[in-house]
Amino acid sequence: MAKNTNIRISLPAVCFVWQIAMIILFGVFIRYDEESDTHWIEHRRKKNISTNLENDFYYRYPSFQDVHVMIFVGFGFLMTFLKRYSFGGVGFNFLIAAFGIQWALLMQGWFHHLDEHDWKIKIGVENLINADFCVASCLIAYGACLGKVSPVQLMVLTLFGVTLFAVEEYIILELLHAKDAGGSMVIHTFGAYYGLTISWVLYRPLLSQSKHLQGSVYHSDVFAMIGTLFLWMYWPSFNSAIADHGDGQHRAVINTYLALASSVLTTFAISSISQNNGKLDMVHIQNATLAGGVAMGTASEFMITPYGSLIVGFCSGIVSTFGYLFLTPFMEKTLKIQDTCGIHNLHAMPGVIGGIVGAITAASASESVYGQEGLINTFDFKDAVANRTVNIQGGYQAAALFVAIAFGLVGGALVGGILKLPIWGDPADVNCFDDDVYWEFVMCCGLYHVIIPKHLD
Amino acid sequence: MAKNTNIRISLPAVCFVWQIAMIILFGVFIRYDEESDTHWIEHRRKKNISTNLENDFYYRYPSFQDVHVMIFVGFGFLMTFLKRYSFGGVGFNFLIAAFGIQWALLMQGWFHHLDEHDWKIKIGVENLINADFCVASCLIAYGACLGKVSPVQLMVLTLFGVTLFAVEEYIILELLHAKDAGGSMVIHTFGAYYGLTISWVLYRPLLSQSKHLQGSVYHSDVFAMIGTLFLWMYWPSFNSAIADHGDGQHRAVINTYLALASSVLTTFAISSISQNNGKLDMVHIQNATLAGGVAMGTASEFMITPYGSLIVGFCSGIVSTFGYLFLTPFMEKTLKIQDTCGIHNLHAMPGVIGGIVGAITAASASESVYGQEGLINTFDFKDAVANRTVNIQGGYQAAALFVAIAFGLVGGALVGGILKLPIWGDPADVNCFDDDVYWEFVMCCGLYHVIIPKHLD
Amino acid sequence: MAKNTNIRISLPAVCFVWQIAMIILFGVFIRYDEESDTHWIEHRRKKNISTNLENDFYYRYPSFQDVHVMIFVGFGFLMTFLKRYSFGGVGFNFLIAAFGIQWALLMQGWFHHLDEHDWKIKIGVENLINADFCVASCLIAYGACLGKVSPVQLMVLTLFGVTLFAVEEYIILELLHAKDAGGSMVIHTFGAYYGLTISWVLYRPLLSQSKHLQGSVYHSDVFAMIGTLFLWMYWPSFNSAIADHGDGQHRAVINTYLALASSVLTTFAISSISQNNGKLDMVHIQNATLAGGVAMGTASEFMITPYGSLIVGFCSGIVSTFGYLFLTPFMEKTLKIQDTCGIHNLHAMPGVIGGIVGAITAASASESVYGQEGLINTFDFKDAVANRTVNIQGGYQAAALFVAIAFGLVGGALVGGILKLPIWGDPADVNCFDDDVYWEFVMCCGLYHVIIPKHLD
Repeated sequence: MAKNTNIRISLPAVCFVWQIAMIILFGVFIRYDEESDTHWIEHRRKKNISTNLENDFYYRYPSFQDVHVMIFVGFGFLMTFLKRYSFGGVGFNFLIAAFGIQWALLMQGWFHHLDEHDWKIKIGVENLINADFCVASCLIAYGACLGKVSPVQLMVLTLFGVTLFAVEEYIILELLHAKDAGGSMVIHTFGAYYGLTISWVLYRPLLSQSKHLQGSVYHSDVFAMIGTLFLWMYWPSFNSAIADHGDGQHRAVINTYLALASSVLTTFAISSISQNNGKLDMVHIQNATLAGGVAMGTASEFMITPYGSLIVGFCSGIVSTFGYLFLTPFMEKTLKIQDTCGIHNLHAMPGVIGGIVGAITAASASESVYGQEGLINTFDFKDAVANRTVNIQGGYQAAALFVAIAFGLVGGALVGGILKLPIWGDPADVNCFDDDVYWEFVMCCGLYHVIIPKHLD
Repeated sequence: MAKNTNIRISLPAVCFVWQIAMIILFGVFIRYDEESDTHWIEHRRKKNISTNLENDFYYRYPSFQDVHVMIFVGFGFLMTFLKRYSFGGVGFNFLIAAFGIQWALLMQGWFHHLDEHDWKIKIGVENLINADFCVASCLIAYGACLGKVSPVQLMVLTLFGVTLFAVEEYIILELLHAKDAGGSMVIHTFGAYYGLTISWVLYRPLLSQSKHLQGSVYHSDVFAMIGTLFLWMYWPSFNSAIADHGDGQHRAVINTYLALASSVLTTFAISSISQNNGKLDMVHIQNATLAGGVAMGTASEFMITPYGSLIVGFCSGIVSTFGYLFLTPFMEKTLKIQDTCGIHNLHAMPGVIGGIVGAITAASASESVYGQEGLINTFDFKDAVANRTVNIQGGYQAAALFVAIAFGLVGGALVGGILKLPIWGDPADVNCFDDDVYWEFVMCCGLYHVIIPKHLD
Repeated sequence: MAKNTNIRISLPAVCFVWQIAMIILFGVFIRYDEESDTHWIEHRRKKNISTNLENDFYYRYPSFQDVHVMIFVGFGFLMTFLKRYSFGGVGFNFLIAAFGIQWALLMQGWFHHLDEHDWKIKIGVENLINADFCVASCLIAYGACLGKVSPVQLMVLTLFGVTLFAVEEYIILELLHAKDAGGSMVIHTFGAYYGLTISWVLYRPLLSQSKHLQGSVYHSDVFAMIGTLFLWMYWPSFNSAIADHGDGQHRAVINTYLALASSVLTTFAISSISQNNGKLDMVHIQNATLAGGVAMGTASEFMITPYGSLIVGFCSGIVSTFGYLFLTPFMEKTLKIQDTCGIHNLHAMPGVIGGIVGAITAASASESVYGQEGLINTFDFKDAVANRTVNIQGGYQAAALFVAIAFGLVGGALVGGILKLPIWGDPADVNCFDDDVYWEFVMCCGLYHVIIPKHLD
């Protein structure tokens, strides 16, 4: 029962070696792009760009910062809800995101942005956004494993997760030429199935030994609401951050704003109807209210219409809350998948809904609605895919969804197998969900030891 | 004493039916505007717009996101200060804001943005901001009722509140042609009197039965500071979000920034002087520091001068803190108005100050200060009001203030009467301010039950 | 032992008198600049500015809001980590920042922006950013004194701190023509040595009497993470907020983003390696992860290259964590400097590193890397310094670092002497780190009195 959770060698080693590797690889490969380089002024003159404002920085920086908040405060605080795992929730989220964004800049750079003349990756603000997006998929996967893995395992999960993500994204966006501005498929579906499969491989039959720590306390639930709300508020920025300049970003914001509003109401409704006296459950409010944002990821740029967005949010809020009520217990008992944060309900199912909605919306797009130019711009029907029809696009969108699921399942099984090795310092079943394993508590009489006296617990 | 607080039918019914109604009404009425539609590229060509940046999205999106944070985190966390009502504070705020923004898009659209050719409402980012603004007035009203009403009552309060707001706003901005960029009158004055009147109608003579829950605890006060600070920091965005492009937004930010800074100092001063040993009261710091932002709502766009802004903040900080010290107890005892969050001090009085300041500043505007074009631009003296003088404008501003108060009082009395019906599942006096009524607590021994042991309470 | 901590006269007096002084001085000196004045439309026509977007507001407002959040929520919540001083941490931070920004607008205005025709200071959004920057240095100084000084002392500390800052900044930026966009030297080095010297002058030999309050509790550490993360996420905005339009802001963001990511990994590594079982220490995670942002302050605009940024973050994360482990105890014991928040580790050392990195990077700049125009633009080699070479610039950068340190040490000694007078209402040694001294607690049985029962403490 007493596992060795000493990570005094492994965690520093992983951090140091990988960070040094990052420095070397950045030295070899990463450079400023023409908009962040001091030669920008010459570039402007050459390209006849009239104002500094045309620098992509001014189109995307506000959205980037919102996404950045979602990654570190949104995901981080959403995972503080456990009564004794708030440090691990927000702290390890911080660690792996900070590592992941560096590795993502390299991986995504190699696949998407490698300059064929000098073999360098030229980065600007859009790369930073994409790196944050990429890391989001690993943080989703973390949600399934929350409290049951060591930080070293999380670093490994992130290393492979980012790698898999970059390949999957390359296949979906470049080879299949599918659209997925907010990442319903690329980020959420992949990340969720990746995490769920890992959690399935790492199944702990005796996890009930730490059952007393698996719930929340009053104030940890309020902390989690910080995460929920920053995710909810900034989701329009998430889905629009790398959308087309102009109407593309504008429309993505409106669609996401509406889908999110709608899923709040259906979440409250289902949560209330499912309990005695109609009492609400904080777990639903913290999570299922976000389903509309996930489900709007693919179609956010499309002319799905405002009421279409409301319908998407309506359905995904219901599906997600039902998931928490029935599917999570079922999965734990029958499928042996222990999903701490319920990412299957918040990311997997709404992500799949988003992929399907995207495919249908794309397939039913028409020139009469989009306008001739608008249709070409929205779906980038040019160069190699200049002659693609919307029906074919719909098919490729559906194919992309399967790619995302497949990468999640196969990748998760593989990485889960690696994480099962007994060398990573993961906690014993009885010590899961306990910050005491990986965090120093110096005070003898601090709140930590007082709030849940042993005889009451 | 034991009221029926079962909302298992009513809350889901209200959420579902109203959300479905929203979908139908959005389907009939709401469309993308020309800046969020794929035809934007054709629109650009036709109007000779040189760059995507001229899309209103880039002027307003950063401010919109700040306002969005104020609505959900700002108002939400400001209401977490009660020791056992943090879930209700931030959770119901979330619910009614998510419903209200949808209904506001419709109501405001019908009054302000109905395209007379096709009878559709065309929405863009400015509509989203206005919807958030509209909902703010209902959240203010919620502040007076915090802890004493059921979520179903709050939904009703919001339904009528948004409706009243849209009419009032139409009268003030369109018919009277008053200016109110930050909504001192339209949002704060209306919202506060609406809420206070409702609270007056719903007066509970035996509320002292739940007196032990009417205070804060240490950490709930720190949570509330999250709300305070996000409101305080982003208030310049609130008052400038729909101001004129260019100098209008720029000036509104400066004025609000200064007024807020000034009211912080006078709040601390009055709070300290009013207590033994000069100790500070968290209630004042959480609330009255924001009075400068409220009071600068109407005049934020005007040439009120930087020191004028400081004076406005100076006075409103004092007035607001005195309100908490003397007026709130007086209102409760004598006027039978139980104002949980003290919105009379934070929104009503500073809102009225803002309306008066706006009227005076408008009436004393001159071409020598504003410039000929500047005066016309700032007050929109064109079309029907091309010949209006600043004196007359001042008069209309004052009239607008009375409209806002009247709508608050009459609307509040009406809606209060509806909410008094014994069908809404509101809590008994002894159960007020208690999350236990509407929220599920699954753990037997969580912090919730431990922090305030019965024998100590 | 029983000191007089009654501030019922002094605090209100200071707040009122200084706020009134601000109003008068603003009335005499401060006006809107041409971009926030209603004459902007005429200015646009005269200068042939094609669009409202060229108003500096649209270049800088999103960054300004991020910086604003750092000042009030970032610094404020970072200082909530003590178990019984969260009100003082976030509350006094609020007070002195709100005062400081007003005084900074004046002081910086007199030195940098005084119109020589009419002797007025014309303010716009860049002045607001600079005022926030200036105040940051005082908040850093507060970190060294946290829990040991009265709010009146903090107001005095801020009054002199802002004054010293403005002079120091004038010498560094105008006379030496050094570059310091993110303020490694001007803000962090100065602020830290200013605070440390004050803390040295105010040394309390019997501080161990309040040792039981000098630690954190579980939830106060989570609150502090809110501060940490908002500082961390928005630091790219801090370092780019007043950088050059276009590539300057863009590059500063990339460099800071990377340095911060890198310092997270080395902080986790050193924190883990220093403890039994590799357990992590929240103090390190809360603070040293930010060192990369501090150390990138000077060179953020330069072509330091992405891997150069990673190296800077790598080293500063290590240095900062080692500081918490070894230097803070050493300084307290041997140098008699009690540094509550460890600002020497977070601001002083990384600030000095930043200054040195800036000097080296400047000295090694070349036309081949920057381009001819790029070099001139980046270092502003024009007018009086048109003929300066990069080597000489490097020397001036180094000189600037010494100016910052000197101002901190001398200014701190001076102000420390003033603060030592027995008239400011500071707490006795036994009452340090206790909110009870300056804050009213009305409830008899609130969490505050329950969480740490006397017999357990």
